[in-house]
Amino acid sequence: MQHVDYLLNGGMVVTMNHQFDLIPDGAVAIQGTDIVAVGTREALAEQFTADEVIDCTGKFVLPGLVNAHTHVPMTLLRGLADDLRLDVWLLGYVMPAERAFVTPEFCRLGTSLACAEMIRSGITSFADMYYFEEEIAKSTSEAGMRGVLGQSILKFPSPDAETYEDSLSRTRHFIENWKDHPLITPAVAPHAPYSNTDEILRECVDLAVETGAPLLIHLAETKHELENSLENIGMSVIQHMQSVDLFRARVLAAHCVHINQTEIRLLSQGEATVAHCPTSNLKLASGIAPVTQMLKSELTVGIGTDGPASNNDLDMFEEIRLAAILAKTDANDPTALPARQALLMATRQGAEALFMGDITGSLEVGKRADLLVMEGQTLHSLPHFSRDPSAVYSQIVYAGHSADVRHVFCNGKLLMRDRDLLTIDEDNLLQQARALAQEIDVFMKRREESLLSRLLAIGELERSESFEVQAKAVFSDGVNLDALLKHPETQIIKTIHYKQYDTYFEISDADEGRVRYREDALIGAKGQVQSVRARLTLTETDREREFHSTILLSRSRFIAEATQSLRFYREYFRPQSERELEKDRLRWHIHFRGELFYINVDRVIHPALPGQYIEIKSRTWSASDAEYKADLIHEMLGILGIQPQDMITEGYLEMQPAN
Amino acid sequence: MQHVDYLLNGGMVVTMNHQFDLIPDGAVAIQGTDIVAVGTREALAEQFTADEVIDCTGKFVLPGLVNAHTHVPMTLLRGLADDLRLDVWLLGYVMPAERAFVTPEFCRLGTSLACAEMIRSGITSFADMYYFEEEIAKSTSEAGMRGVLGQSILKFPSPDAETYEDSLSRTRHFIENWKDHPLITPAVAPHAPYSNTDEILRECVDLAVETGAPLLIHLAETKHELENSLENIGMSVIQHMQSVDLFRARVLAAHCVHINQTEIRLLSQGEATVAHCPTSNLKLASGIAPVTQMLKSELTVGIGTDGPASNNDLDMFEEIRLAAILAKTDANDPTALPARQALLMATRQGAEALFMGDITGSLEVGKRADLLVMEGQTLHSLPHFSRDPSAVYSQIVYAGHSADVRHVFCNGKLLMRDRDLLTIDEDNLLQQARALAQEIDVFMKRREESLLSRLLAIGELERSESFEVQAKAVFSDGVNLDALLKHPETQIIKTIHYKQYDTYFEISDADEGRVRYREDALIGAKGQVQSVRARLTLTETDREREFHSTILLSRSRFIAEATQSLRFYREYFRPQSERELEKDRLRWHIHFRGELFYINVDRVIHPALPGQYIEIKSRTWSASDAEYKADLIHEMLGILGIQPQDMITEGYLEMQPAN
Repeated sequence: MQHVDYLLNGGMVVTMNHQFDLIPDGAVAIQGTDIVAVGTREALAEQFTADEVIDCTGKFVLPGLVNAHTHVPMTLLRGLADDLRLDVWLLGYVMPAERAFVTPEFCRLGTSLACAEMIRSGITSFADMYYFEEEIAKSTSEAGMRGVLGQSILKFPSPDAETYEDSLSRTRHFIENWKDHPLITPAVAPHAPYSNTDEILRECVDLAVETGAPLLIHLAETKHELENSLENIGMSVIQHMQSVDLFRARVLAAHCVHINQTEIRLLSQGEATVAHCPTSNLKLASGIAPVTQMLKSELTVGIGTDGPASNNDLDMFEEIRLAAILAKTDANDPTALPARQALLMATRQGAEALFMGDITGSLEVGKRADLLVMEGQTLHSLPHFSRDPSAVYSQIVYAGHSADVRHVFCNGKLLMRDRDLLTIDEDNLLQQARALAQEIDVFMKRREESLLSRLLAIGELERSESFEVQAKAVFSDGVNLDALLKHPETQIIKTIHYKQYDTYFEISDADEGRVRYREDALIGAKGQVQSVRARLTLTETDREREFHSTILLSRSRFIAEATQSLRFYREYFRPQSERELEKDRLRWHIHFRGELFYINVDRVIHPALPGQYIEIKSRTWSASDAEYKADLIHEMLGILGIQPQDMITEGYLEMQPAN
Repeated sequence: MQHVDYLLNGGMVVTMNHQFDLIPDGAVAIQGTDIVAVGTREALAEQFTADEVIDCTGKFVLPGLVNAHTHVPMTLLRGLADDLRLDVWLLGYVMPAERAFVTPEFCRLGTSLACAEMIRSGITSFADMYYFEEEIAKSTSEAGMRGVLGQSILKFPSPDAETYEDSLSRTRHFIENWKDHPLITPAVAPHAPYSNTDEILRECVDLAVETGAPLLIHLAETKHELENSLENIGMSVIQHMQSVDLFRARVLAAHCVHINQTEIRLLSQGEATVAHCPTSNLKLASGIAPVTQMLKSELTVGIGTDGPASNNDLDMFEEIRLAAILAKTDANDPTALPARQALLMATRQGAEALFMGDITGSLEVGKRADLLVMEGQTLHSLPHFSRDPSAVYSQIVYAGHSADVRHVFCNGKLLMRDRDLLTIDEDNLLQQARALAQEIDVFMKRREESLLSRLLAIGELERSESFEVQAKAVFSDGVNLDALLKHPETQIIKTIHYKQYDTYFEISDADEGRVRYREDALIGAKGQVQSVRARLTLTETDREREFHSTILLSRSRFIAEATQSLRFYREYFRPQSERELEKDRLRWHIHFRGELFYINVDRVIHPALPGQYIEIKSRTWSASDAEYKADLIHEMLGILGIQPQDMITEGYLEMQPAN
């Protein structure tokens, strides 16, 4: 008789080995870190005694699940913002919060929380991509889980590195320090092709090849990414990666939603593996990855939850089921991706996708003891029919829930017993997480309290205040524009014609002013659009001051190039309502008595106002300058022959008839 | 102070009323069957004392969930067969099992099991379509749940009715007996347009209108259904239903996957409601219903799990999440169907879809007390950010699990307390279910033991044994066909030319013989295909007997028109391997000495055999007749001048060179 640490007795042992052996009334013997025997209960009872015998009658014994793609510390940002477009979610919420909060402590706490949640869902191994990955390694190894942990590399500054050179040296350091750890495989993780340069990607490949570390990357997640790649680089995302020799490294590519058969072949030839993330892809409307074709082309495909901020949980049972059912509709074939195949992708094939198929992913002698024991006699999984042996897989995949997992082992160590976590102090973590969430909440709320700080939070925009002195009048028949333009004190600098499309966001807090998104389409001599320029302004609705009772001083607190689309700003600011204004404008830039003024002759096209209007404007930066320019405007109004009763102090929006 | 039965205190009350009021530290007061107050804990503490105060601190209090489409007794068939095409699943497995097992007892047990599972997932109301619906009503009301229960009506015999007239009168009876029950709404449930006639549908509408009962039906579930409708009726499914005046009744239509904008409008104008079943639709590869468009057109859409045999569980949390994320990818817009809208479809709007929006679906004074209390502080739902009030909906929809539900009330009665079911003896039910599953298992396995019974189980096919006497030879140059055809004892009845495509399924159990799917394409005088006919045979591989050493007697144990496609039979029989054979055949039906014979001159095209072959065959039904016909064949072989060495006793398959 051989003595072992654990004997798991009497369950249905679902080995997921190459023969897909199922052993009813089976047993698994664990000694140290390894599985030393898998067989019938009867057979193992004759060979082994154990420190602890765990009765698994009525339960399923499975390999521990492999989560092929996630960002574990993002547990702390779960639920921060949902149901948003990727850019709004990322630029508007996640990145501002990350810039402010992602520290080593944040990563340790977030990782421990994620490990707790993953162990509860039967996961024993995962692939991660985030910042401060050495902290993630610490928490993961403390939790007793197995991780392929990729230090993120970007061309932009990130929470843990000012430059990509810093990132690379941090990554090299990380790999050197952790490369021999029994649970942790350090990895190089260039975030994505679009967030890196070809040069950085090549350096990442060099580092990966030199150190033997896997390379983790997001590839072809969205259609937008594919289209941009085709347009800017003239190649698909995968072809582009081929061109930078990415596949010299052992590449685990997340998503691969928008790839065709040629690219599947390229990945396959490059011995890259894929992490399929169905919930994240659906939730962010990225699309459906062609998993059935990938598997036909013998690509190794694992299943990932993606980060908890976009999923919103780390539940592999949900993910496996969704992978199985989604592939059927995608392939228009209900026999596609059957339950056994889906479970394979979350176990043995998942382990292969993480380049550790030799040590985990199936219940086989010599592999590490990474396994889970789950209820097999729940209300939602009964009855059992023995007619079809693969019914076991159906039960696990289609009716199994993460809450059914009872015990979890990783590397021979018991991490959860009867749903009690043994390596993680859950209550303590939750308390810390609540405290941190409160801080983030206060930060986000404060940020939202002022429109200005919400504008600033988008980050790429720059604050720039500007004051304007301006007068406006009806352009009646009596107005003589030539008198001003040909005046001896006037010098015309340039004349332009454009259409201006304004979208005003009305936000409840009126004190704040209004955000205006403005597109100017410059019209050429032949009436064609020559160029388009978009700007964003935060305008105060109150005037600062009036001169000569009709000449106004107003302030734009914020003005900047609008680098995102109108749609982005709409979804980011979520205005109570919007108002649009379209005008046709002839503009003269003139010097009058040596000072720069703009003369606008406007027709308001939509919503239409009758007639034309004339405006005189000038920028100003001091009160005395403003006063002086107001006087000059007053003089120009006289030259133009504008009557006091034709003067207007309202904006075009306010001039609209009430409806 | 008013005294009430229950006071639910301190939770986040998610009312789902028209203002979507959220009450942190809220309370709900229940008296009798009704909600008598909803407000802050503080406010209700001043007004009410209660028999029982349930502390809901840290929890969410929600309206009970509404499962808009299911077939509850099918809990007993869960996992019987999965990953199959709808026809194989239905005709090959589910219907044979239903024919053999669906009885009143089956329906009662299956319903009680389903109620237990649904209560555990926070469901308080559901819409059902099945057989013996009065038994389902009994079990549902005993469990304390609310149900819109539709008695199924089909043009075929069903487990509870020999004819549709029986079904209709059973339905009328059911409605009369249950129409005033506080929990049960009896309904008319014509299964689908394709499984009924227009006449039956009209009678169903009449019954529904006369009694005021809702009408439940499956509509436009698959592309196949739509295409058949267009081809056979010249109208889409919804137009067809319009033409039989279906929408005179209050119609709850399940699925509606394949409908366009016009049909959405027809449904909306007809005040029909829709049950969206995303898991079932994905798993059976039916497609993705255009939910976003439906909602835009103000259709009332609920969410349903569909039956547990095709889902494979009754978990509304899975369904709500999937509805939300699937719509985003379908609409290519991550802001589509946000969490709050998805939850609405599973609560207030779901209740409206079941025509009981006046009594349930939201936490409002005067509605019945149908509600659930769920954990809000789980590892997988933290942290909470208060920045965005709708984050509560995200937490529930994207990270909530059915296992988080703690307490469930329906009609003012507590059905589950701390996950203990109070109206259902779960262990007892599970024991009964296990016993029944074993019976079904034995039945299904016995059925599978013989190929013949698997063939018979498909039901539409008829058993018909046939014996054949036959001889075959190489058609060498020396063979004189004319000598036989112009022989004075020969009378040619007809001559035909066809191509025969055989697919042989090789099943492991060789004793059983081989299943052959055979398509004959009749070739006209100009070489064109005139008609195609498909047959299915179960052929024994052994010969019954030999005559004159080369004339064989063989038996087909089964022969019938193949009403399903080759694909159907392939997926149903799951052969170890398949072999194909294509031959070009000239066939003469002749009388020789007054007996009917077939003379075949064959070329085996694929896999190709050299030369031509001649066969003489005749049907026979008795040993002495067989012997007599063998003698006649022997005589004909002489007339043809066939040499003994040219005789062949192998089939064309066996003649193929081994590879």
